[in-house]
Amino acid sequence: MDHQLPLILLTNDDGIYAEGLRILRNFAQTLGEVVIAAPSTEQSAVGHSITLYDPIKAHEVYHGEGFYGYAIGGTPADSVKLAIHYLLPRKPDLVISGINNGANLGINVLYSGTVSAATEAAILGTPAIAVSVAAKKNPPFEATLPFLEKISRWVINNGLPEGIALNMNVPAMPFDKIRGVKVTRQSLCRFNETFERREDPRGDFYYWLSGEATPDNGDDGLDIAALRDGYVSVTPLFYDLTAHKHIEDLSCSLTKK
Amino acid sequence: MDHQLPLILLTNDDGIYAEGLRILRNFAQTLGEVVIAAPSTEQSAVGHSITLYDPIKAHEVYHGEGFYGYAIGGTPADSVKLAIHYLLPRKPDLVISGINNGANLGINVLYSGTVSAATEAAILGTPAIAVSVAAKKNPPFEATLPFLEKISRWVINNGLPEGIALNMNVPAMPFDKIRGVKVTRQSLCRFNETFERREDPRGDFYYWLSGEATPDNGDDGLDIAALRDGYVSVTPLFYDLTAHKHIEDLSCSLTKK
Repeated sequence: MDHQLPLILLTNDDGIYAEGLRILRNFAQTLGEVVIAAPSTEQSAVGHSITLYDPIKAHEVYHGEGFYGYAIGGTPADSVKLAIHYLLPRKPDLVISGINNGANLGINVLYSGTVSAATEAAILGTPAIAVSVAAKKNPPFEATLPFLEKISRWVINNGLPEGIALNMNVPAMPFDKIRGVKVTRQSLCRFNETFERREDPRGDFYYWLSGEATPDNGDDGLDIAALRDGYVSVTPLFYDLTAHKHIEDLSCSLTKK
Repeated sequence: MDHQLPLILLTNDDGIYAEGLRILRNFAQTLGEVVIAAPSTEQSAVGHSITLYDPIKAHEVYHGEGFYGYAIGGTPADSVKLAIHYLLPRKPDLVISGINNGANLGINVLYSGTVSAATEAAILGTPAIAVSVAAKKNPPFEATLPFLEKISRWVINNGLPEGIALNMNVPAMPFDKIRGVKVTRQSLCRFNETFERREDPRGDFYYWLSGEATPDNGDDGLDIAALRDGYVSVTPLFYDLTAHKHIEDLSCSLTKK
């Protein structure tokens, strides 16, 4: 079946009816056959959550018009796992997660449901792209599509190295103002976070997390620097958290009798 | 105040009343002043979830006897953030997350609330240890303590490199059968996962994730190999997911005009 269209799995963390996913679906239909498996409800900042101790529901909510789709009663990573292991007719050629409202840069990649869906696909051996646009209000989703198209076609044709997912962030600008694509590293800066304490009507305290985006540290190779300079940032991610450069020194220190 | 006792923050993902945390608390009181900030309910497999769009409640549920503790209406990462940014009187000298029932090895570190709490502490600049015992039923928590004591005292005295957390897994054996400590790398094997489909009484389908632990691949430097061989595994983790070795090749491929 060499003439089979590429099979594209779409997911997100904003839920199956989100605007960013609708635009992504219209786009992906130009690349191949499209299946959606996305959370039935908004799942932002769930990180790499998976559902182990409850069953997962999946309802087919779209069927026809060149695509079909399932609303998954779980997280983005659950959606990818269930689709790849069970719902899809064959292994997909590409998984795209997004389009997210708001950038996923720096340590945010650890908290992001959008990115974790792509990482999960990579763990399962499928090339994957997470795509986010760096605006919270009125995100210019359409401006991402020419970049996403070029990168998606390249990945469909060439694959990605084993276990790698791409984390793509697009600046919130009109297409013709964006200066190009940079392949970047994840910034490691922490945020200026605070908690604000409030008292509820019953006298209990509750806390709101708030925080500012951290300023970039001036290293042009970082994801945040690319966005600042008007480029699309593409960071290749791998799911190895080992601090390889500290294996040897810690081994000397911790394994002494 | 050079004579101040070390301040130890404890958390977990099984909830503040879990047996493993009770044993950890009794142990940690031999090291210094202890504060607990742990989820009010069980939070396994939440990964690096944080709570952004809801406020977080914190109730002081222990006070006195050399420690105090808060039940946090959030995830393990929330608990660490709120404790370090707001609840603690000063920056802790060490964060310990656990003792978890069940190993956190290989790609499980991405899904583990226990490990993510330690990673969060490392992001916030605090040395941290996640500790798990590789048994689900009747875990021999006490056998972990001599190893945890040695490593905790070393970390309190020496710190850890910036941003590093230790992921410690102890085999489910009596103390005198454990052969020692190995500093290891995270295994990257995927699991043999499947989903089992069932039909509910209303005719809807639901899916249970099931899977077997993956066999080790024979590399003695991996976390799973250390456990197999009867050693305590200590993996240094860093929160950089960048696939550094693919920056250059992807840069050539993806940034061409």
